[in-house]
Parts: sequence; C-alpha cells; structure tokens
Amino acid sequence: MAHISVIGTGNMGQVIAGLVTKGGNTVESVNTSDTARPVTGDVIVLAVPYGSIADVIAQRGDQLAGKIVVDITNPIDFATFDGLTVPADSSAAAEIAAKLPQSTVLKAFNTNFGATLASGSVGGETTTVLIAGDDADAKALLTGIVAAAGLKAVDAGGLKRARELEALAFLQITLAAGEKISWTGGFAVAA
Amino acid sequence: MAHISVIGTGNMGQVIAGLVTKGGNTVESVNTSDTARPVTGDVIVLAVPYGSIADVIAQRGDQLAGKIVVDITNPIDFATFDGLTVPADSSAAAEIAAKLPQSTVLKAFNTNFGATLASGSVGGETTTVLIAGDDADAKALLTGIVAAAGLKAVDAGGLKRARELEALAFLQITLAAGEKISWTGGFAVAA
Repeated sequence: MAHISVIGTGNMGQVIAGLVTKGGNTVESVNTSDTARPVTGDVIVLAVPYGSIADVIAQRGDQLAGKIVVDITNPIDFATFDGLTVPADSSAAAEIAAKLPQSTVLKAFNTNFGATLASGSVGGETTTVLIAGDDADAKALLTGIVAAAGLKAVDAGGLKRARELEALAFLQITLAAGEKISWTGGFAVAA
Repeated sequence: MAHISVIGTGNMGQVIAGLVTKGGNTVESVNTSDTARPVTGDVIVLAVPYGSIADVIAQRGDQLAGKIVVDITNPIDFATFDGLTVPADSSAAAEIAAKLPQSTVLKAFNTNFGATLASGSVGGETTTVLIAGDDADAKALLTGIVAAAGLKAVDAGGLKRARELEALAFLQITLAAGEKISWTGGFAVAA
C-alpha cells in the first residue's frame, strides 16, 4: 500500500485524493496555506496551479527530496490564452525537475479533466492517465495507484514527453473553453 | 461540390482521396513523381512526408497560389524518434505557410491514423479531424468535405495551433510505435 500526499485541495486535488482512496491506498490532503504541516507521502502530488509551484518548492523543497513528485500542471498563459508560459523547448515538468534534483518527478493527470477522472470515462472509453517520467519504478508505482482506482494508465515515455502532454492538454483546454468539446469530454485514448 | 487534389498516393493520400469521393466531392490523385501533371483542385492536400514538402513546393508553388493547401505532415525526427525537425516554437504548417504566402494553409488529418480515417471510428467515438488555420471560410469548406464523408471535424483554432496538433500526433505515433496503443486506435475526441 502506498501513502500519497496531495498538496492542493482544489477540484483536481480533491479528485486525485478520491482516486487514491478508491484504490485502497492512503492519502493526506494538504492545503497550500497549511505550510506548517509537513507532507509525509512516498508520492507527493503537486495539485496546484503552475503559478504556485515556486512557492510550494520554496516552502517544502526539503520535504520533497527523495520522494516521487507528481506534476499535474498546465502552464497556460492566461493573459493571452494562446500559449504556454514555459519556453517552447521545455515544459513545466522539466522546470520543476530542474528545481528538485533530489526528487523523482513524474508528469501525470494534466491531460485529464477532473470530471473524467471522477467519472472514470471519456466518451465511451475508460479514462486514461498518461504518465511521463525517467524512472520506471516510479511510473510503475503511480500506474498501480491509478489502475487500483479503475482507470487506465499509459507510460508516455521519458519526462521529455511532458512537453507533448502539456501541448495536448493546452489544446484540450482551448477546445473546451471554445465550446468545441465539453469539460466532461476531451481526448480519450483508444487502444 | 468541391474539387480536391491530393498530391501523394501513399496510404494517407489514398485514404483521404477515398473520403473525398465518399462525401460526393471530386478528387484527383497525383503521384509526387508525376511532376508534369498540374493540380487543378480548389483544395490541394499535400499527402507527402514532411521531407518531401520542399520538393513539392519547388515544383508546384505557382499551382498552389490562391488555393487552400492542406498540410497533413508530422515532421518527426526519424533519426532519434525523440522530437520534431521543426523549431520548438514553430510547426511544419507554419514553415509551409511561410513558403506559400499566396496560399491559404490549413493543418488537418495529421492527428488521424489512416486506419481511423478509413474505418470512421477511434474506439467508440466517430473519428474527428482537427483542423487549424487562420481562414474561417477555408476551414468551413474542409469541415464540409470531412462531414460529408461521415466523420466529425473540429475547428482547433488558428494555424498557430498546428504546433499542438503536431505535438499530439507525435505523442500518438510514439505510443503506437511503443505498442502502448494500436495503429487502429489513438486519441479520440469525445464531445
């Protein structure tokens, strides 16, 4: 059984915490404002907006050392809604990994709308969590947590692929914001 | 009724030509080696690998002027299979549009595996063609051609969004090449 900390108690944080519990693993949900409370999970999910990541790292960098850190962010430029705030040849995950050299950073959940994580389906397909990262054991652990909750997990490759996961998610968000798809739909992964 | 030229008679060229015919529009398929034969369509689909685009433009640039040109390419770096050959802040479509200032360039079909265009479905969802471009009328025309063939078409935004369409397609190809999904599956779009 794995113990997971979810930092952030917004919609995504709540949904991910619910998945962990559903799968029979244990979770602690920590509000970003509760900086005095240390996180104790083996896996720590940063369920905060990308703009809040720097604060979390400043506050808890030492607590994240030696842990699997899951980045779920989409670094969208909300001023223009026309691109990302990270360099074109980088990704939020790469930026976070650079700041946390003692952590094992995974990218996951950023391509899933919260509603599809909660419902377990996207259209006619089971919701699939795409996971990118450079550590096979860490990906296997997160895959198990996701699968235990009844969802599918797919290894999307090394952490470098976070760039594509963030591009896909950005596109998906623009489609929903533009009412081309709903926030309960989006990109499904068909085997 | 629209008249479409498809340059390239490989798998994608054949499938797209089939869709056009199925939808009641007319099509001419032109082999890339048949450089003496001019293309006469209102819409010209460049169904060739990205590496062959420069040749097609050199041979037929004047024939493409004033036309709607559809770029379906994925500029994958086949040496590494770990990235694209276009600059990170650009796209194949943007590169092509820069070389064809008198054409109206659309990005489409690059996120669809040929098998899903032919079958009409991805998993349990109707195959969706994502179309990016800066000209609303051109996108509407291509949307009509796609819809007439029984598929869905979704306006993915301006030509700038080709970058995300190419990222999505690259990811999809790596997943299929890595046997995480099949070449008859991939990303479906659920409303």
